[in-house]
Amino acid sequence: MSVDLLVEKIKEKSNPSVAGLDPKLEYVPSYITKKYFDEYGKTLKAAAEAIIEFNKGLIDALCDIVPAIKPQSAFYEMYGLEGERALNETVAYAKEKGLYIILDIKRNDIGTTAEAYSRAYLGKVCIGDTEVSALDVDSVTVNPYLGTDGIAPFVNDCVKYDKSIFALVKTSNPSSGELQDIVSDGRHIYEHIAECVNKWNENTVGKSGYGAVGAVVGATYPEQARVLRSIMKNSYFLVPGYGAQGGGAKGVKPCFNGDGLGAIVNSSRGIMCAYKKGNWKEEDFMEAARREAIRMKNDINSVL
Amino acid sequence: MSVDLLVEKIKEKSNPSVAGLDPKLEYVPSYITKKYFDEYGKTLKAAAEAIIEFNKGLIDALCDIVPAIKPQSAFYEMYGLEGERALNETVAYAKEKGLYIILDIKRNDIGTTAEAYSRAYLGKVCIGDTEVSALDVDSVTVNPYLGTDGIAPFVNDCVKYDKSIFALVKTSNPSSGELQDIVSDGRHIYEHIAECVNKWNENTVGKSGYGAVGAVVGATYPEQARVLRSIMKNSYFLVPGYGAQGGGAKGVKPCFNGDGLGAIVNSSRGIMCAYKKGNWKEEDFMEAARREAIRMKNDINSVL
Repeated sequence: MSVDLLVEKIKEKSNPSVAGLDPKLEYVPSYITKKYFDEYGKTLKAAAEAIIEFNKGLIDALCDIVPAIKPQSAFYEMYGLEGERALNETVAYAKEKGLYIILDIKRNDIGTTAEAYSRAYLGKVCIGDTEVSALDVDSVTVNPYLGTDGIAPFVNDCVKYDKSIFALVKTSNPSSGELQDIVSDGRHIYEHIAECVNKWNENTVGKSGYGAVGAVVGATYPEQARVLRSIMKNSYFLVPGYGAQGGGAKGVKPCFNGDGLGAIVNSSRGIMCAYKKGNWKEEDFMEAARREAIRMKNDINSVL
Repeated sequence: MSVDLLVEKIKEKSNPSVAGLDPKLEYVPSYITKKYFDEYGKTLKAAAEAIIEFNKGLIDALCDIVPAIKPQSAFYEMYGLEGERALNETVAYAKEKGLYIILDIKRNDIGTTAEAYSRAYLGKVCIGDTEVSALDVDSVTVNPYLGTDGIAPFVNDCVKYDKSIFALVKTSNPSSGELQDIVSDGRHIYEHIAECVNKWNENTVGKSGYGAVGAVVGATYPEQARVLRSIMKNSYFLVPGYGAQGGGAKGVKPCFNGDGLGAIVNSSRGIMCAYKKGNWKEEDFMEAARREAIRMKNDINSVL
């Protein structure tokens, strides 16, 4: 009912970072895509097979370094049913390797529909009198625009199935302020949402001191992160924007607590495309990703 | 690059309503679920087959009455890969029948990821030098929490592929006000977002007078709808909350313009479960749905 499991894995690997698996096809080494294009043509199936091989290679290379992976659902949905199959296979493989899986879906809807989303990814779905898992992950991201109704079903499943969620609070993108930085009653919208996160998180705090409801807080806004860290004392932060989006280790520091816990920093492109920087051969994409994951781990730990 | 196609279909059928296809398994007549449980056991495959048969029956019953369907993605994702297959088959079948398809996904993310979502549902995805459609629909719902970055890729594809989107502005659920009703500078957040919708919609207005960027405005908040109608003059409203959620024809009236255009009202449970009210036999679910769709059409037209 909390993020205790994630915290354990972070401690075990002394690494508060998560590898984002956002497999645009242009990130996949061309010797892999070529193999499947030759076999299946330039089809969604070829794309899915290439992504599965790439992801499994990355997971093999990273699974003793990082505590968690974060597949971005958009980059699987983009390849239709075949892409969804690639996501399912990626999740299954990462589970075998003992990784914590944060599925980045940013779902949101009214109560009964949010319940369906939660069942799809955290809970179980009823088929007659049988309960079945659809795609079972450890954690998902959610969007708070609809308020408590849309979040409560996820929190219920967190408690029931020992899962976690991360609600968008202050996102890493340039236009995040258009809505999130609006000021009302002397506080920004992201601060109002942070108070909601506290309310949703209230009864879920585990032995780590952190609850099931975390927050997405971008590395690109360190000043806001500092404020948010002080409001949401019992929430873990999922921190995008390190690396390719411009946030460095100093940018992520305010997301952490004094004990070096409280945040997990994502890198997607930086790790997946590490082989495209320097003198790597495409075939060495795994080693390149591993080196970048180690560099990132050391970089972040150096400021904690 | 606008909602002209939707407006045409609404005029053709003199019906500003859309049938929501949110196939919870308990909505499906038991003689259908039983058939597939007997064949496949209580499995995700059985659930998907039951949903496909139910949806096709509903589409057959409704396709000369309603201009559009709105599948709610959550209720397909809930059944995993099999559920996604059911969604794909439902969309394909509805297309054959000439229906406008609004896929209710409420997606949102940073720019490059929003682009992937848009390609998945409105645009095309590149596989090598080939462009492929993943699941091609006419329109999707989007969430504005991340600001312009997260919406622009969808608007670009609306222009390029003649599609539309509906951005959440004032949602129909009880807790929608927690964020959406916060007041800043004398205006509610939903009014601020309405101004953003105007900006996003600016260069997309078609011959109907409406642009590609519409707004989700709940039937349960008619006062707010009145205000929003006056702000977003060139946006079509997608209106949930009629029927099961408590909004009636009077509640939806403020969403329309004087000419009887400007809004399309959704009913999901009311139509899908029409056979559960009154003295219908389960086997007559199609006729019951048809009668309810006609009743709803007349009910809404009576206040326009």
